[in-house]
Amino acid sequence: MSLSHYFNPSSIAVVGASNDPGKAGCQIFKNLLELGFNGPVYAVNPKLPELFGRKCYGSLKEIDGPVELMIVSIPAFGVPQVFEDAKDRGDVRAAVIIASGFSETRIPERIELEKQVLKIAKEGNIRVMGPNCVGVMNTSNHLDTTFAAGIIQTPGGMSVISQSGSLGASLMMFATHQPASMGFAKWAHVGNQTDVDVLEVMRFYKEDPDTKAIAIYMEGINNARDFLEVAREVSEKKPIIALKVGRSEAGSGAAASHTGSLVGSDALYDASFRQMGIIRVDTIEELLDTAKAISMQPLPKGNRIAVLTEAGGPGIIAMDELGMSADITMAPLESKTIEALKEALPPMAIVDHTTGYIDMSAAADEDHHAKALKILLDDPNVDGIVHLSVPPTFLLPDVMAQKTAGVLKGAEKPVAVCYLAGEWINNARRILESSGVPSFDMPERAAKAMKNMVLRSKLIDSKKKEKMEKRIFSLSETSRKIIEQKKQSGYNLTEPEARSILSDYGIVFHPAVVAKSPEEAEKAFLSLGGVPVVLKIVSSDILHKSDVGGVETNKKTPEEVRKSFESIILKVKSSIPEARIEGCLITPMAREGTEMIIGAMRDSQFGPVVMLGMGGIFVEVLKDVSFRIAPFSREEAWTMIDDLKFKPILQGIRGIEKADIDGILDIAQNLGQLMSDHPEILEVDLNPVRAYAKEVCPLDARVILKKT
Amino acid sequence: MSLSHYFNPSSIAVVGASNDPGKAGCQIFKNLLELGFNGPVYAVNPKLPELFGRKCYGSLKEIDGPVELMIVSIPAFGVPQVFEDAKDRGDVRAAVIIASGFSETRIPERIELEKQVLKIAKEGNIRVMGPNCVGVMNTSNHLDTTFAAGIIQTPGGMSVISQSGSLGASLMMFATHQPASMGFAKWAHVGNQTDVDVLEVMRFYKEDPDTKAIAIYMEGINNARDFLEVAREVSEKKPIIALKVGRSEAGSGAAASHTGSLVGSDALYDASFRQMGIIRVDTIEELLDTAKAISMQPLPKGNRIAVLTEAGGPGIIAMDELGMSADITMAPLESKTIEALKEALPPMAIVDHTTGYIDMSAAADEDHHAKALKILLDDPNVDGIVHLSVPPTFLLPDVMAQKTAGVLKGAEKPVAVCYLAGEWINNARRILESSGVPSFDMPERAAKAMKNMVLRSKLIDSKKKEKMEKRIFSLSETSRKIIEQKKQSGYNLTEPEARSILSDYGIVFHPAVVAKSPEEAEKAFLSLGGVPVVLKIVSSDILHKSDVGGVETNKKTPEEVRKSFESIILKVKSSIPEARIEGCLITPMAREGTEMIIGAMRDSQFGPVVMLGMGGIFVEVLKDVSFRIAPFSREEAWTMIDDLKFKPILQGIRGIEKADIDGILDIAQNLGQLMSDHPEILEVDLNPVRAYAKEVCPLDARVILKKT
Repeated sequence: MSLSHYFNPSSIAVVGASNDPGKAGCQIFKNLLELGFNGPVYAVNPKLPELFGRKCYGSLKEIDGPVELMIVSIPAFGVPQVFEDAKDRGDVRAAVIIASGFSETRIPERIELEKQVLKIAKEGNIRVMGPNCVGVMNTSNHLDTTFAAGIIQTPGGMSVISQSGSLGASLMMFATHQPASMGFAKWAHVGNQTDVDVLEVMRFYKEDPDTKAIAIYMEGINNARDFLEVAREVSEKKPIIALKVGRSEAGSGAAASHTGSLVGSDALYDASFRQMGIIRVDTIEELLDTAKAISMQPLPKGNRIAVLTEAGGPGIIAMDELGMSADITMAPLESKTIEALKEALPPMAIVDHTTGYIDMSAAADEDHHAKALKILLDDPNVDGIVHLSVPPTFLLPDVMAQKTAGVLKGAEKPVAVCYLAGEWINNARRILESSGVPSFDMPERAAKAMKNMVLRSKLIDSKKKEKMEKRIFSLSETSRKIIEQKKQSGYNLTEPEARSILSDYGIVFHPAVVAKSPEEAEKAFLSLGGVPVVLKIVSSDILHKSDVGGVETNKKTPEEVRKSFESIILKVKSSIPEARIEGCLITPMAREGTEMIIGAMRDSQFGPVVMLGMGGIFVEVLKDVSFRIAPFSREEAWTMIDDLKFKPILQGIRGIEKADIDGILDIAQNLGQLMSDHPEILEVDLNPVRAYAKEVCPLDARVILKKT
Repeated sequence: MSLSHYFNPSSIAVVGASNDPGKAGCQIFKNLLELGFNGPVYAVNPKLPELFGRKCYGSLKEIDGPVELMIVSIPAFGVPQVFEDAKDRGDVRAAVIIASGFSETRIPERIELEKQVLKIAKEGNIRVMGPNCVGVMNTSNHLDTTFAAGIIQTPGGMSVISQSGSLGASLMMFATHQPASMGFAKWAHVGNQTDVDVLEVMRFYKEDPDTKAIAIYMEGINNARDFLEVAREVSEKKPIIALKVGRSEAGSGAAASHTGSLVGSDALYDASFRQMGIIRVDTIEELLDTAKAISMQPLPKGNRIAVLTEAGGPGIIAMDELGMSADITMAPLESKTIEALKEALPPMAIVDHTTGYIDMSAAADEDHHAKALKILLDDPNVDGIVHLSVPPTFLLPDVMAQKTAGVLKGAEKPVAVCYLAGEWINNARRILESSGVPSFDMPERAAKAMKNMVLRSKLIDSKKKEKMEKRIFSLSETSRKIIEQKKQSGYNLTEPEARSILSDYGIVFHPAVVAKSPEEAEKAFLSLGGVPVVLKIVSSDILHKSDVGGVETNKKTPEEVRKSFESIILKVKSSIPEARIEGCLITPMAREGTEMIIGAMRDSQFGPVVMLGMGGIFVEVLKDVSFRIAPFSREEAWTMIDDLKFKPILQGIRGIEKADIDGILDIAQNLGQLMSDHPEILEVDLNPVRAYAKEVCPLDARVILKKT
């Protein structure tokens, strides 16, 4: 069932419409009347004969015309009766429950109340948005089910989903009250999501022809995995820009107390958003700026950006912002372009071909601006332009805006404009924006919006190139039995058990032998070729082998190995007398190499997640690791390497062997596949992993099963 | 001579006043008349009998009344004659030269022209601001020598220095055209700085009673050292907030082509700004927000901040921003406070004492806001408050603002306010700001302004605690001779020479002996105790000893040492036949330890700079180093350690020996003193330095002298 009953209803009833300005039902009814919703709007309130000159009905049932959408703004306990009435009518298809006091209170009887309402709704074939929400807006039909006052309904390409009603409404008030009122297509706040949820709204926006970009304000989600899957699907077609709060610990704490929803680890949000093609922004301003830029103009085809300014200061500020991003290259102008600019611009203009920076100087007039823009648009080396002006007194901003808009008409490249001169340029901004050219308050904000457009373009490109291949492995009979048994007896697998499972998934270890006695240990040593070995205790009761003296390294003779075996058993028994000991695993010492850690976990929010990073003591301090939601493509896996600060070390510098990055990525992808295939596995830890030029070798392996 | 002739002139003449709107002299004259400057203003223009109803004079000489300040807005080549006239008058004390076309063109005759003007000015006892500048503004006497149109002169505590006239003017247009017009005290753009420079303006602002905070827009400076010294002096008394562009390479490039001034390395600016107590900001908005916050309210006494909100979304956003800063702690509310809040606020309010976060819920009315603010102000554990509201429809923003302003009257703690509801709260913001309470567009911007106030408070505290002690050392006769000789013959000192100089400055090396023959090498080995040694070639012709085979390590017997000596000499001679070889330095192998690098250089902009950081291959990738301008205090030296990402390693973790940080800082400070005392030294490199628990030992030393 589509959400068009919400966004495009033919008729609306407001249950709880009121003339008391202190009540939501007053402003809701006013909004519908005053914004000019193009269909019948009925007021329901048994206490009033009429409201704002309209007839007021005692109940839903009394309304003579059809009702497609109802907005319910009465106290919680009255809501079930309203739904009974709607069910009886039979024509109501959708409801927005403004009222709070349901499941969000976490009071059992209130949770029950929400369920009761939903049950009646289902019987009546009525969709429910909320409770505890403010509903939707749609500029194309002047619909507004919220009680927000003063939002200007200028049509535009941005559609909004907000997890906070007040923030969502106030940011629209802010945006639409700007000098050039920011336009939008649709808006939604879905509250408790008892039926209609954020994902359904996202899918609706995906198909909505008016929506060019989706802006989301998020606090936390209980179904991150589902969210990400939908986001991946939606962002293939339309850009999603998300302000996800909870970046800092302080912020996460506040979110948890606010929405009661779990806020997952911020690093996971960061990684997964990028993985799904979501543009994550840091501030409300960046959310609005980016949505504006992306919804108004074509995306840049590449990342080569030119800055065209008539004042040095703003120009440098924009260059600074662009230069901070690794995603941006300053456009290398063609020599033809430079010649044309020199020809067209005042003699004092600085045309710097190495950086794509053009300072036209304060001598530039309206025509210079337009001509220079045209020349830059024509240069195939330019993918986008940031255009800045501090109009001198002799320059007429409105004329400049008109000429700029003229040149940009039909342009296939984005141009982000910032005129900086207080109120003096407000009308010029309105001219620009009504012609489809986005303008920004500040040069750095114009630059950042351009940067996010480039990022979107890059994400689309990389997603196009991405090939999701299932890596096909299956567990051997042995591994299957291990899991079956250990699910009963415990959850921590021994290293030989872990090796068995991981080997089935293509992860290669150095040979190892389990010895159950000093004699077997000696034999194992010899069978491994008599090279120096390490001995490690085998016991599923021991999680940290080193801590209990369960590991000894570099044993070089049969004698040493035998003694080491005895000593390990002795130490472990004295540390943990009750531990069931299966023997010692004996394996050759690995030579020095770049130390890494590769692991996987099952996050309660995100499901299987694979991590890889640098190992060793120095890096422990820096936590130089990268995460991805599993499974993921090879292309995505490569971006994990890009995330690492220590990437140059893997690529080999100053006497350090280049690492077999393909081998590292194989392990990471295989772990991801293992986690996806086997929900009974909770955690895998390969730590350390030694990466060499032609081989990647895990030195230790841990697998932890889900407690059942 | 004070700049009061500029900011508080009793009379002004505008040479080049005009009725042509395309000419600067038109708007300048208009600004002076229309803003209501409180003294006589004379127009000078030989072509006009009168201008805007005022008499127009043919030349300066014709003016009958006194002229203290003259604004010269005529083409460059006419300027000398104007100064001759002024000199003849004898009463002109100050001049602003608007005209460009002087030294900034880099054309020899134009440079000469500027010198000529300055010469006449000096003869006439006239100060010169510019050329190529727009001069000054002062809200207390409605002065404006610029040709910027439409800047609203609301008095306020911020004073501005801009290195760009257009950016400086346009940011004032932006700021003063905000819903609540931002006030300022003074403003200046000094152009070519042929006489009056940025430093003099800073010093003037320091003494100006109207100036509470100084906001600077900087592109680059030729005299960084002087700037920093003045900034240190000024910022002891008044906060300096600087937007210094050139953070990225792209930005620096643009700056260089714009102002022609050298932009120093951004890392040096970053470090030195903090060292001098300057608050560096990233954007124009942060510059204005911070200047507003700091100039309107008392500084927080500590870093414990509470967030009081009535809407969850903005609250979380503010918490997020605060939480990103290591400088901020969320206020741990007293239990008394929590009780009082529970008592005063609606039952749905969330009072979270662990994080200083209070969500009053949408049920809060105007009185709730005021009461909660009062309770928080009274808590001794709260140093500052970020106060947020998305006013629900039933809440009257103006009343809330009045009550808030009432509670905050005379408060000794800062409160940063953000009301978020588009135009609906504009008047409330005007009420707040006219009562001295700063308000901000966005919750994150309010939080960031508060963060910068905390930073300022912290900087003041740390400067108060700082003891600048000169470290008294002097060079021995031997070292003096080394420098004297090497200044003649070359500039790269050998390691024994470097050791001599550095030892004089308290830097302790492990013992070493220079051997000139294999026999001497053997003897040296024995004299050092027969422990394993390293041999290094001694030759001032060789900068990189290892590259030419000039280093051999871990020689354990007299025989090995002898062979090593011979092999080194052989290798070096075959690599660089012309190198003058003085022998080999022999010193015991140092045991393993934390590797660092400590060095010093003489920057063309910043003078002596000391660097310390982590050594070794891993850290080479991360460039984990910290800089300070030398000399610096012990307190400042400690902050260098705070800068290092690898600080935990120096403090000792997981089997790594704690480093003797005091020993590291001694070396850093001593190097700083050496560089300050001896301008003939260009560079010192101690790399690597091994840091142990009770000792810090440089393993190699390089000193490079200035080429003379």
